[in-house]
Amino acid sequence: MSSSVASQLEIFRARTVELVSEEDLARKLEEKRPLRIKLGMDPSTPDLHIGHVVVLDKLREIQELGHTIIFLVGDFTGMIGDPSGRSKTRPALSREQVEANAQTYAEQVGLVLDSSRIEVRFNSEWMDRLSSGDMIRLASHQPVARMLERDDFKRRFRSGTSIGIHEFLYPLVQAYDSVALEADVELGGTDQLFNLLLGREIQRAYGQSPQVVMTMSLLEGTDGGAKMSKSLGNAIGVREAPEEMYGKTMSIADSLLAHWLALLRPSSGTDDLCENPRDTKAKLARHLVTRFHGPEAAERAENHFDRVFRERRPPEDLETCEVPASDSEGAEIIEIVLTAAFAGSRSEARRLIGQGGVRIDGERVALAGARYAPGEYLLQVGKRRFARVRVLPSPS
Amino acid sequence: MSSSVASQLEIFRARTVELVSEEDLARKLEEKRPLRIKLGMDPSTPDLHIGHVVVLDKLREIQELGHTIIFLVGDFTGMIGDPSGRSKTRPALSREQVEANAQTYAEQVGLVLDSSRIEVRFNSEWMDRLSSGDMIRLASHQPVARMLERDDFKRRFRSGTSIGIHEFLYPLVQAYDSVALEADVELGGTDQLFNLLLGREIQRAYGQSPQVVMTMSLLEGTDGGAKMSKSLGNAIGVREAPEEMYGKTMSIADSLLAHWLALLRPSSGTDDLCENPRDTKAKLARHLVTRFHGPEAAERAENHFDRVFRERRPPEDLETCEVPASDSEGAEIIEIVLTAAFAGSRSEARRLIGQGGVRIDGERVALAGARYAPGEYLLQVGKRRFARVRVLPSPS
Repeated sequence: MSSSVASQLEIFRARTVELVSEEDLARKLEEKRPLRIKLGMDPSTPDLHIGHVVVLDKLREIQELGHTIIFLVGDFTGMIGDPSGRSKTRPALSREQVEANAQTYAEQVGLVLDSSRIEVRFNSEWMDRLSSGDMIRLASHQPVARMLERDDFKRRFRSGTSIGIHEFLYPLVQAYDSVALEADVELGGTDQLFNLLLGREIQRAYGQSPQVVMTMSLLEGTDGGAKMSKSLGNAIGVREAPEEMYGKTMSIADSLLAHWLALLRPSSGTDDLCENPRDTKAKLARHLVTRFHGPEAAERAENHFDRVFRERRPPEDLETCEVPASDSEGAEIIEIVLTAAFAGSRSEARRLIGQGGVRIDGERVALAGARYAPGEYLLQVGKRRFARVRVLPSPS
Repeated sequence: MSSSVASQLEIFRARTVELVSEEDLARKLEEKRPLRIKLGMDPSTPDLHIGHVVVLDKLREIQELGHTIIFLVGDFTGMIGDPSGRSKTRPALSREQVEANAQTYAEQVGLVLDSSRIEVRFNSEWMDRLSSGDMIRLASHQPVARMLERDDFKRRFRSGTSIGIHEFLYPLVQAYDSVALEADVELGGTDQLFNLLLGREIQRAYGQSPQVVMTMSLLEGTDGGAKMSKSLGNAIGVREAPEEMYGKTMSIADSLLAHWLALLRPSSGTDDLCENPRDTKAKLARHLVTRFHGPEAAERAENHFDRVFRERRPPEDLETCEVPASDSEGAEIIEIVLTAAFAGSRSEARRLIGQGGVRIDGERVALAGARYAPGEYLLQVGKRRFARVRVLPSPS
């Protein structure tokens, strides 16, 4: 709390897209007390990816100013899910799943924040006590027309896609969480602006001073999609293997690089951008691996990448797996892929082969029925997965 | 349960506007058990008027077939009211008000139905136990767009008049009441069709066979308004004095008569309609007073009406009230009106005088400050209220 209000304001404001409102924030900072900073956590996604890190970095800076960071786990809503079954992205979770996910999440958050100084809260704590009458009173504070102004609802309403009435209640629950937590500030991605502002309105309706709303840019997915998301398969997880993290970062389109650099802020790199995107990406990739796995892992990942993708040589230190031939003709390619654990089922292995994603000694395998005689081979699946395979002679 | 399904169907169907669906009703009747017939009661309106009697007459016929009549008092919703304060017609009621109103209502229902064989239930019984999570699940069974198809919501939405989200929850609560009651049939006015049909949907969603929905025409108000309603001041209460009941019936426009006769069904009258509306109205008025006050009261009311309105003479058997003069000039007109109990306050008395509604000996009283010297007078307030007044000399 030693920093001045002005210097704190500058730290809060940096890299935010919206800040509603700076006056409210200044007034709260002038009270010289630790502010209560809320970040909502989706209990269905335990694994953090580097998109989350953009917001967590911000929270780290705020935490260092002496404020209290609160992770709000939406377990109440998570356990209800979408009872209409209309939304596939909202399956109901069990109490055990929610708790395991929150645990994993808190551990990963510790990679960025001082986890001894965060508060993890579950909204079932107050929502389980809220009666249906309380819910009706909560709903009375928001008009239908205003809710239909939210981008996604507006789009669905106009296109005739069904919106369940319960979907109007979820944002109200999220807003009520701010009341229960007496949040001073809530952070989120730019796609959360409506919900965060609703928190302000509902706090006012319950006689509290409205929270300050701060939104941050969303990090694009590795495929260039608007939002990085594990379920879209375009994410880089903070606990992914160094080689994967490095390789995925190298794979992004040059056009994304400026925005990624601005949000992920390696200590250097932006200056070099115009000169050589490839080298800039390598610096960013090394920065990310260093951050989550340390400098040695970063160096190994870089060497691996250069060897495999620049020099087109198989990686060093490959594991060797042994596959017994099933008969005198040798081992089936499907068996080989399964033994290397590059597919979880025969049908997945068959699909990978069908897509042309499987190579033996650099040659694409064209047929799922291909067999390989006893001997040693280099197996490659996709761009980045390699194994040495030893096919053993048939026992008969 | 001795009547055949076909003859019961005929009784159910008579005078209904919509019956959804006859197939469902036939199937339920074939089970040869007492059906559970639900009628919702608004806990804010304890006094029955003859508009309610249209539906109660129907219930009487159904009760006589051996089915169970359930009056559902919406006390849970009544006690919440409209928390947004947007609707003046929905003030929150206290537990005591709700109970007193339900008591009065049940007594008045006994004028039409065999009250030893009705079930009065309060929806707080199950709604107080419903959690906020249960409410979210309930809300998930109805899409926003479908709710906006309801006439009043559609109108308000199009005209930009605010609809609170809680207003979408009330029809769902009413529908859920049918689940809790395991209602087989729900009756209501034609303006209730949407809500009653929602009961069918929600019962299906909760695994019950959907209730049969029956709507009946609304009785027009005495002023010709679409709906008789105490709060609109166009109702004839079942406990109103015989003279009021008779006089109000005589006051309706001839154009309403055919519909009133069809709904209120005096044993005769419709045949005479074309010949002489005045005599037809008199028969209907006598029928109504006889029904709720007996034949003697009906005769007295008729004599009173004929004397006062046809022969323009003051009624017989008037009560005499005594008003002491306040000084040597006599008694104030305001005091006289108050003593005759034709106004509840000085300001109401002043308003009646201002509207030209007060006469002394047939002459309109023009000034609220008018005084009357000791002596006897005939006081008339409005069309139908008379008293003899004796102004006593000032005691000084």
